[in-house]
Amino acid sequence: MRYRDAGVDVERSDAIKGALQRAVERTWGPGVLPLRGGFAGLMRGPGGALLAATLDGVGSKLDLARQAGALAAAAGDLVYHGANDLLVHGARPLAFLDYVAQARLEPEAVLAVVEGLSRACVEVGAALLGGETAEMPDTYRPGAIDVAGCMIGWVEDGRVIDGSAVRPGDRVLGLGSAGLHTNGYTLARRVLDRSGIGLDAPLPGAGTRLGAALLAPHRWYGPALLPALEQGAIHALAHVTGGGIAGNLARVLPAGCRARIDPGAWEVPPLFRWLAAAGEIPVDDQRATFNLGIGMVVVCAARDAGALAGALRQRGEQVFEIGDIAAGERGVEWSRP
Amino acid sequence: MRYRDAGVDVERSDAIKGALQRAVERTWGPGVLPLRGGFAGLMRGPGGALLAATLDGVGSKLDLARQAGALAAAAGDLVYHGANDLLVHGARPLAFLDYVAQARLEPEAVLAVVEGLSRACVEVGAALLGGETAEMPDTYRPGAIDVAGCMIGWVEDGRVIDGSAVRPGDRVLGLGSAGLHTNGYTLARRVLDRSGIGLDAPLPGAGTRLGAALLAPHRWYGPALLPALEQGAIHALAHVTGGGIAGNLARVLPAGCRARIDPGAWEVPPLFRWLAAAGEIPVDDQRATFNLGIGMVVVCAARDAGALAGALRQRGEQVFEIGDIAAGERGVEWSRP
Repeated sequence: MRYRDAGVDVERSDAIKGALQRAVERTWGPGVLPLRGGFAGLMRGPGGALLAATLDGVGSKLDLARQAGALAAAAGDLVYHGANDLLVHGARPLAFLDYVAQARLEPEAVLAVVEGLSRACVEVGAALLGGETAEMPDTYRPGAIDVAGCMIGWVEDGRVIDGSAVRPGDRVLGLGSAGLHTNGYTLARRVLDRSGIGLDAPLPGAGTRLGAALLAPHRWYGPALLPALEQGAIHALAHVTGGGIAGNLARVLPAGCRARIDPGAWEVPPLFRWLAAAGEIPVDDQRATFNLGIGMVVVCAARDAGALAGALRQRGEQVFEIGDIAAGERGVEWSRP
Repeated sequence: MRYRDAGVDVERSDAIKGALQRAVERTWGPGVLPLRGGFAGLMRGPGGALLAATLDGVGSKLDLARQAGALAAAAGDLVYHGANDLLVHGARPLAFLDYVAQARLEPEAVLAVVEGLSRACVEVGAALLGGETAEMPDTYRPGAIDVAGCMIGWVEDGRVIDGSAVRPGDRVLGLGSAGLHTNGYTLARRVLDRSGIGLDAPLPGAGTRLGAALLAPHRWYGPALLPALEQGAIHALAHVTGGGIAGNLARVLPAGCRARIDPGAWEVPPLFRWLAAAGEIPVDDQRATFNLGIGMVVVCAARDAGALAGALRQRGEQVFEIGDIAAGERGVEWSRP
């Protein structure tokens, strides 16, 4: 437990230690117990609910973010990523714990990470309940940093969503992404390196620079989806991470249900078009790697699709009707329904 | 979520994938919900209890373990470490999630790690609820591996231990460690490298080799301490990790309580004596870095000390009466009471 333990090098500076502590405590609601020692964090959870938990790393977006001085934002992405993963099963965020490791800890980098985590935790409603910093010169490359984190949440018994309600005839909606979110950065960086184009170059077809587009934060779909989940109209959700739209939607489909995704149902954003062109990436690889503009997939009954799409749009989402569910072998195909 | 997602390279081999899945499911009690999609793990928790969570990395013990082909055991140490951290606050393990990262994932190494985690999770009673593997060639050194993990647990409201019950006159007991546990490996490796002595060399004063002594597993104190916690005789616990006996005991002392640790109350085990001599480590540095043979510190009322020590010994612990609590400035000093 980093935050309450003065023994760690990164906290030798009192100013940094104080800033870390403030960033952490900003995320604590009344459910977090003040606790001497702090070997673990403690908090109240809603009684009788199910525990949900997921753990992830930021991945290679971190290197790009570090290069662009955007470490805090990339760290926040880890929180949004974990919170969206919980959302897929109907769960709400409750607590987050992080791991930050370098060859030699750079206190300013650790602080940027924790401040980014803190901001995102406040946004999704998770208490930053603990964390660990590790200094491992034989494991990490000089100057590199890795950040991983565990998101813990809750869902009421009987409100778990896992796709078992999906039926042939259901509709598939796609919610707009803000960019790559946290997947496909290894490929994106390879394209960037080969292209010889800098992060400051304008992105064709968009009023922004390449760097800003590449580092756009991972969107958090809770504000739109949590009220919709309460209403019970959602049959399945799929967070579009590694594996793309099809790979992730396939994870939540029951037997006998085949999703058909119409690739013409939405316009692929400029960043993905640039990556595909500059990297000469085959369309199958694009689809298996990138979200292509769809960050979350929603499956609902055909009769609810219009009202649900309207409600999600009212809460600020871009909503595309991207396909439907047919009877057939479990899986996802790219074809016009 | 690694385990249920076929998209990750490390799982390209069906044999490894199956073995990973079995190692994970071996840890699942009836509280874990089978869940399509598996963006997060879900399980039941005892109603009305408090959530406890802690996250740690194995640290530089991993490099040594890898060198000695003992990766699985070192991974298990992460589980014992987290479980002991929960125990300090009276909490019991419930679920564990791990993060395994390399420059290029080596499936056999990942499998060894997950099998080690699985065995230890079964032992402490935690479900291995999720995990993530990351491949980051720009972040990790070739051949290196990092493993971190989050332990989630529960404690009944009103049964939280945080040292606030400690009073002057209390006794301090020390429970024997098995070796370095998971702290002090950076220093230990430096000593080892400088000494030029190999892991196969016999450890003076012990019937074992240096490598085996250095890689002895982190002990899990739950079987002895959980029944004692039920009986309510324990005023404080301190898990001896980074910072040593004094550094960790100080974390749980209330104002006005000063612990006096008698360094002559137990015999420092041969491994620590060898490290101190071979590395010419000053005694203050030894005390601030190593557990010196005491892996967990227990504070209780003087009248309960004899019975508690007897009960802990009956459950297989080595128990030393290592000091007492005096009235004074909050802190820990090394002196004969």
